[in-house]
Amino acid sequence: MRILITGGDGFCGWPTALYLSNKGHEVAILDNEIRREWDQELGIASLISIPTMEERVNEWQKHAPVPFRAYHVDMRDYDQLVNAISEFQPEAIVHFAEQRSAPYSMINREHAVFTQTNNIVGTLNLLYIMKEIVPDCHLIKLGTMGEYGTPNIDIEEGYLTIEYNGRTDTLPYPKQPPSMYHLSKVHDSHNIMFACKSWNLRATDLNQGVVYGVQTEETLMHPLLTNRFDYDDVFGTALNRFCVEAAADHALTVYGQGGQTRGFINIKDTVRCIEIAAMNPAKPGEFRVFNQFTEEFSVQDLANKVQSAANKLNIEAHIEHLPNPRVELEQHYYHAAHTKLVELGLKPHLLQEEDIMSFIQIAMANKDNIRLDKIMPSVSWR
Amino acid sequence: MRILITGGDGFCGWPTALYLSNKGHEVAILDNEIRREWDQELGIASLISIPTMEERVNEWQKHAPVPFRAYHVDMRDYDQLVNAISEFQPEAIVHFAEQRSAPYSMINREHAVFTQTNNIVGTLNLLYIMKEIVPDCHLIKLGTMGEYGTPNIDIEEGYLTIEYNGRTDTLPYPKQPPSMYHLSKVHDSHNIMFACKSWNLRATDLNQGVVYGVQTEETLMHPLLTNRFDYDDVFGTALNRFCVEAAADHALTVYGQGGQTRGFINIKDTVRCIEIAAMNPAKPGEFRVFNQFTEEFSVQDLANKVQSAANKLNIEAHIEHLPNPRVELEQHYYHAAHTKLVELGLKPHLLQEEDIMSFIQIAMANKDNIRLDKIMPSVSWR
Repeated sequence: MRILITGGDGFCGWPTALYLSNKGHEVAILDNEIRREWDQELGIASLISIPTMEERVNEWQKHAPVPFRAYHVDMRDYDQLVNAISEFQPEAIVHFAEQRSAPYSMINREHAVFTQTNNIVGTLNLLYIMKEIVPDCHLIKLGTMGEYGTPNIDIEEGYLTIEYNGRTDTLPYPKQPPSMYHLSKVHDSHNIMFACKSWNLRATDLNQGVVYGVQTEETLMHPLLTNRFDYDDVFGTALNRFCVEAAADHALTVYGQGGQTRGFINIKDTVRCIEIAAMNPAKPGEFRVFNQFTEEFSVQDLANKVQSAANKLNIEAHIEHLPNPRVELEQHYYHAAHTKLVELGLKPHLLQEEDIMSFIQIAMANKDNIRLDKIMPSVSWR
Repeated sequence: MRILITGGDGFCGWPTALYLSNKGHEVAILDNEIRREWDQELGIASLISIPTMEERVNEWQKHAPVPFRAYHVDMRDYDQLVNAISEFQPEAIVHFAEQRSAPYSMINREHAVFTQTNNIVGTLNLLYIMKEIVPDCHLIKLGTMGEYGTPNIDIEEGYLTIEYNGRTDTLPYPKQPPSMYHLSKVHDSHNIMFACKSWNLRATDLNQGVVYGVQTEETLMHPLLTNRFDYDDVFGTALNRFCVEAAADHALTVYGQGGQTRGFINIKDTVRCIEIAAMNPAKPGEFRVFNQFTEEFSVQDLANKVQSAANKLNIEAHIEHLPNPRVELEQHYYHAAHTKLVELGLKPHLLQEEDIMSFIQIAMANKDNIRLDKIMPSVSWR
């Protein structure tokens, strides 16, 4: 299958591209490398140094069993995007190419406006190009579990069947996104739903949980293929950040009470979920939603698990509760469905203590790169 | 009360500004006059010729019982907007300044991207400025009943209390917006809800029905104060367009079967609803939603009413069913709550045959301006 991976230079996009390529799919990545500019803007860097996009692509081309290529394209530039898609003629487009950090979107007005316009315009451009050039192509869009917020009822996969005043309908699940970034994803979801209905496009929205882990089988095949590892307060996600904090003898920084419960997924399952979605496409006109996570943890659960794994490595890993920089409930009901990908064949890698120990060990091996001044929360929601 | 009316040069904004000013409120309008550029782009014009913004403002300043001023500002320009709001220090901001035509948003990709970025960025700028400069100001935002789509259950005012699997929550009403324009309003609503929650801002979202009518008491006080009257396929709304079609001996153009049912409101009630919202502000942190319409009609109902009124004026007014350029259900359940504004004192002007006759007579008086080539649908959803 010809699969285009937008955002293919990123933390999820790169290992997904390599995994699908290694499985024999004809893969192209498309990226403007802007994620690397945000590192410079914020004075941060991946804990594991990564080569340029050109270098890692050149290296993978030595390993790939089938042709693999890269497009340097900004998705806000319609003409560039038209040219790439016209040339590659993808059968599936996996769309990761968005600003994906909630704190980054909350830095200030400029970052909020950038996040929303960048994400919305890129996705709108893609939808119009699919309609014009590849109308049968399957869009696989990365959403986030965060779109749902924390309602006091069960979270379903995209839709909710509601009985009300004696009548029934199945409607889009009501969303309560908790940041300018999460809002941009909700806007995308509405736009894509409309495009499927009006233009008969086919799309799968993958509401992904918080991703943890670093490497996959393919990113380990050569040092130049390594995945990035973010631990800073803006782009680092909770479990990865805790592991780096443990490695650096820094306290594990839990925001507020730590009762915030979320869905989590190993990067090794992310790449598999994408393949499952691609191999089982949505029907023409269908806007399908899968919740892409494998387990639920509270932030406190995670901190406890990291502390326990760290102790086995003779690290104390003190847990510290910080004032919460976010506006969110710290104790709440949370129960979210996530059966559709499993029904299609996902065999989850559930979080083991050995996984956490290996993440801490990766961090220890790169200890010289840890910038402790980039760990404490620098962006407030208020 | 000091009230800023963004989009104050438009079809709803202008009569609202005059009404509130005439009631003794200190009003400023803020507009970039871009609506007039869209007329030029599409080769259309208000059926009733309107003077420049400067001329109509100068004229109203002769009638206004209190100071009245105007800012020529593009809401996408943060600095301009900051300056205006810093100077005027509004206690309420009535935000009409958005691209408000569904067909305009569906012309092509450029118009979709423009509509969404224009509407979203203007509203985001406003929210950030309120947070920084006038945090106690009450935002009164114009949404649309179209945001809800046509669900098979009752439509409530913004929120829905859902019982599900033995648990209960009151969640944002699920939205199914039917155009790129309607989508932009849903995006705005989510953004504003988040700002109220995170920053303790106060906002009222007025999901307005289709507005009909032309003049108000104030716009009739001098010819230079007249309101605009749109009848073309892009900016004209159904009832107004039917009246012009009747006046021009053109068939009344019903899209599809005509079973599409919507909420409607007289422009005279629009201005009163805004006043009611301003006089009864939302609480800090509250995102309140009112459905702002007074009656439900199907498009076929309206065509029949216009035909009947036209007959009394000795006009035949043949009804013609056109292929529907939109993607929408033509027969559906529709029942929407609209009690909150009535509870706060709205006394609706319900649609009378004499109203319709007066609209047809206005159209007849301006018959020389009718461009019949601008009536048939020119924009397809597909």
